[in-house]
Amino acid sequence: MTENDSSERPHVVIVGGGFAGLYCARSLRKAPVRITLIDRRNFHLFQPLLYQVATASLSPADIASPIRGILRRQENVQVWLGEVVDVDPEARTVHLADGASVRFDYLVLATGATHAYFGHEEWAEHAPGLKTVDDATAIRRRFLLAFEVAEREADPQVQERLLTFVIVGGGPTGVELAGAMAEIARRVMPTDFRSIDTTSSRILLLEGQDRVLPTYPPKLSLKAREQLEGLGVEVRTGTFVTDIGEDYVVAGEERIAASNVFWAAGVAASKLGSRLGVETDTAGRVPVHPDGSVEGLPNIFVVGDLAQMEDGEGRDVPGIAPAAIQMGKHAGRNLARDLRGQARDPFRYLDKGDLATIGRAAAVARLGRLKLSGFVAWILWIFVHILYLIGFRNRALVLLQWGWAYLTYHWGIRLITGDPPVRLQRARGAEGVGSDDAPAKEDG
Amino acid sequence: MTENDSSERPHVVIVGGGFAGLYCARSLRKAPVRITLIDRRNFHLFQPLLYQVATASLSPADIASPIRGILRRQENVQVWLGEVVDVDPEARTVHLADGASVRFDYLVLATGATHAYFGHEEWAEHAPGLKTVDDATAIRRRFLLAFEVAEREADPQVQERLLTFVIVGGGPTGVELAGAMAEIARRVMPTDFRSIDTTSSRILLLEGQDRVLPTYPPKLSLKAREQLEGLGVEVRTGTFVTDIGEDYVVAGEERIAASNVFWAAGVAASKLGSRLGVETDTAGRVPVHPDGSVEGLPNIFVVGDLAQMEDGEGRDVPGIAPAAIQMGKHAGRNLARDLRGQARDPFRYLDKGDLATIGRAAAVARLGRLKLSGFVAWILWIFVHILYLIGFRNRALVLLQWGWAYLTYHWGIRLITGDPPVRLQRARGAEGVGSDDAPAKEDG
Repeated sequence: MTENDSSERPHVVIVGGGFAGLYCARSLRKAPVRITLIDRRNFHLFQPLLYQVATASLSPADIASPIRGILRRQENVQVWLGEVVDVDPEARTVHLADGASVRFDYLVLATGATHAYFGHEEWAEHAPGLKTVDDATAIRRRFLLAFEVAEREADPQVQERLLTFVIVGGGPTGVELAGAMAEIARRVMPTDFRSIDTTSSRILLLEGQDRVLPTYPPKLSLKAREQLEGLGVEVRTGTFVTDIGEDYVVAGEERIAASNVFWAAGVAASKLGSRLGVETDTAGRVPVHPDGSVEGLPNIFVVGDLAQMEDGEGRDVPGIAPAAIQMGKHAGRNLARDLRGQARDPFRYLDKGDLATIGRAAAVARLGRLKLSGFVAWILWIFVHILYLIGFRNRALVLLQWGWAYLTYHWGIRLITGDPPVRLQRARGAEGVGSDDAPAKEDG
Repeated sequence: MTENDSSERPHVVIVGGGFAGLYCARSLRKAPVRITLIDRRNFHLFQPLLYQVATASLSPADIASPIRGILRRQENVQVWLGEVVDVDPEARTVHLADGASVRFDYLVLATGATHAYFGHEEWAEHAPGLKTVDDATAIRRRFLLAFEVAEREADPQVQERLLTFVIVGGGPTGVELAGAMAEIARRVMPTDFRSIDTTSSRILLLEGQDRVLPTYPPKLSLKAREQLEGLGVEVRTGTFVTDIGEDYVVAGEERIAASNVFWAAGVAASKLGSRLGVETDTAGRVPVHPDGSVEGLPNIFVVGDLAQMEDGEGRDVPGIAPAAIQMGKHAGRNLARDLRGQARDPFRYLDKGDLATIGRAAAVARLGRLKLSGFVAWILWIFVHILYLIGFRNRALVLLQWGWAYLTYHWGIRLITGDPPVRLQRARGAEGVGSDDAPAKEDG
C-alpha cells in the first residue's frame, strides 16, 4: 500500500484520549481509515485512581501514560496535542484553540465531563474539585499544607480550623477521598509532627441525599457509612451546602469553620457538546441514538461521559469508566461496519457492577446481584484496578507501592510542589498571626 | 525527662533540608539540644538525579522524600515549613518570609546554591536552569512539547528549529542532560511520532573551557566527549554564549536557531550568606573556619554549597553532595563537642571521587587515582546512587524503573503537566502558522 492510498482513506478525528476515545481508536486498528486523535494533554489518565494522587498515595506518573506511547504500534493513528474549541458539522471541521482546523469524514467526540458547582462558580476557589492531574496535585498541596501550617500555629482555635477537612458530595469520589484522608491523618501522619495531634483532625463528608453512594444498593451505602465512621469520618447525609468561603462552609443551618473544603458533588459535560446544534440534557450531555451517533449527524459519534445513551432498558448509561470503554469500542465497530457497507449495531450496556474503596483495607462492591464489603471487596478492588491499568508500564510499580503502603503504613509521595510559601503566608496573614506572636511560641 | 528540661536545652536552628542540613540534624540525634529544621519545601531532594526528572526518566517522587518522614523518629527535631529571608547574628534570630522569627543558640546555615546567569538575568526566561523539582518539571515540559509542536508543524525550517536543543555548560549537569536528551530523541521517541523523524534532532553542548567536565581528569573529559559524540551530541568547547533569545542562542560568532535552550553553566550561593555581615567570595559563598563556623560568629555554622571551606590542602571543597554531607556531619559533631566542653575539630575532606553518567549505559568515574569509563563506570554509578538514596522508600522502585527502562528502551514518565496549550499556541503564533496553513497540511 502506497502513501497515496493511505491518504485517501476516510479521515476519523477522535477528540479526547480518555477511556472512550482511546478504546475507540484501538478498536479501529485494523480499519481502512486514517485516525487523528486530538487531546489537550499528552497523556491518558486512569481517572478512577486520581483520588490516590490527591491524597499522596500515588504519583501522577503512576496513573497517567503518554497517549503516543499507548498507540505507538497502531500505524493508522496520528496523535495531536491541541485543544478543540469548536465543531462545524456542516463543514465537517473541528477548530483548535491555536487557530488550526482539521477536516474529518467521521468525528468521535469523547471530551468527557468536568466538575460543576451548580451555578456557584465562586466556590471553585475555596473548594477545588478533582478531574485532572493538576486538580489532584492542587488538592494534595492543600491537604498537606494544612498540617504544615497547623504545626506552626499557636492559636488552638485556628489549629482546629486548619485540621478540619470537609468533602462535599458522597458519591464514589467523595467517599474515597474522605476515607483516604481520614486514614492518612490518623494512621500515617501522627509520628511526623511534634506540636499537633493529627489524630484529632476532623474529616466531614456531606451528602445532600439520604445516603452515601446513592447510585449503589442501599445495603452497600450503609456498609460504606459504617466503614467511613470506623475510620473516624463524620458522615452527614440529607445535608445541603449553601455557602463556601475562605475558611468556612455552611451546611444546612450550621457554619463549619474549615480551611479545607474539597468538591466532589457535581459534574457537567464538556462544553463541546453544545457546539453540535442539538439540544443537550441538564448536565450538558448530548443525546445519542442507539448506534452512538447524533440526531441528524450520522457521521458524528459522541461517546463516554459526554454522551446521554440509554442502556437498552430505558435507563441512562452511567458516567463510569467501563461504560466509556464500551461506548468507545461500540462507536469504532459501527464506524468500521459503515465502511464495509454493513448496518450499524445498537449499543447494549453490559453492567459490570460498582466498586468503591474506603481506606486501607475496606471497600464496597456490587457484581451483578452479588454485594460485597470489607476486606474481600477491597481485594477485588485491587485486582480490578491493576487489571485495568493495561497499557501502563507502571502496573507492577503501582502494585508494589500499594503493597508497601499496606505493610508499612507509610505514604511516600507527600510532596508539596508549586509555590507553598505564598499560600502559607496567606493562611497565616488571614489569621493576623504575625511576627509578634510567633517568637513567643518559639521561645516559650 | 520532663517537658521543661527539654525546653531548656540549647536551641539549634538548621536552615535548609538538603544534604548538609539533613546530615547535620541526624548527627545531633543524641545531643542534648532542641533542633528546628526550617526549609521552604517539605521534602529533601536527591539533587544528583534531578536531571533524570528533567528528561522524563524518573518521577519527582522517586528522588524527593518528605523531611518529616526522614526525621520522624528523631524526637529532638521539629520541622518547619517556611522561608528564612534574614539572619540577625546579634539578636540570634532568623526571620521568615511570613513575618515569623525564631531565636537560636546555634545556627547552621545550609541553604545551598542556585543557578546563575552571570549578570544576564534576562536569559532565565529562555534558558531555564535545573536546581529544583519545579525547574525539572518545567524543563521536562519544554523538552517534550518541542516534539509535540514539531509533529504538527508544516514548515521544515521551523521543525528543525523546534528539534534543536542547546545545553549551555559542560559540567556534570550539562553532560548528563545532553546525554539523556540525545538518547531519548534517538532511541525512545522515534516510534511515537508520525510526521517528524526524532532521530534528526540536534543536541548541542556548549562549554566555555577547552574540555567538558573541566574539574575531572583530562582523560575522563576526553572519554566523556567520545561517549557524548557516540550518542550524536555535538560538543563545542571553547565556546562562549553571548546572547540567548526566544528562538536562538549566539555562541561565539554563530547564531544557532533553537527553540530549546537549557542552562547548566553557573551557580551562585544562596543570598542568605550575605546577611551575616562577613564578606562573601565571588560566587556568594561564606568563608568558614576549619571548624565550620563563621569569622567572629562561633555559634553560626555554614555548611554545604553555601560554604567556602578549604579541604586541608589549600583547595576549596567542591560543591557536590558527598562534600555537603561531610560538612553537615562535621558541624553537628563540633556543636556537640561544644556542649560537652571539648575543643572543636578541624574539617578534613575525604575526596571520594567524581561520577557522571552519559546516557543509558555509559559514564565516567574517578575513584581516588582510579579512572573508569563506559559500562563499568555506569554500573558503579548505579550502585553509588542507589546506595545514597538512603531514607527514601523508593530505592527499590527506582532500581526497578531503571532496570525496566534499560531493558525496554521506553521511558514512561513523559507527562506534560501544567498548561501546555498556552505554550503550544505561542510557539505557533510566533511563526505565523495560523488557521489558513494548517488545514492545507491536514488535507494534503
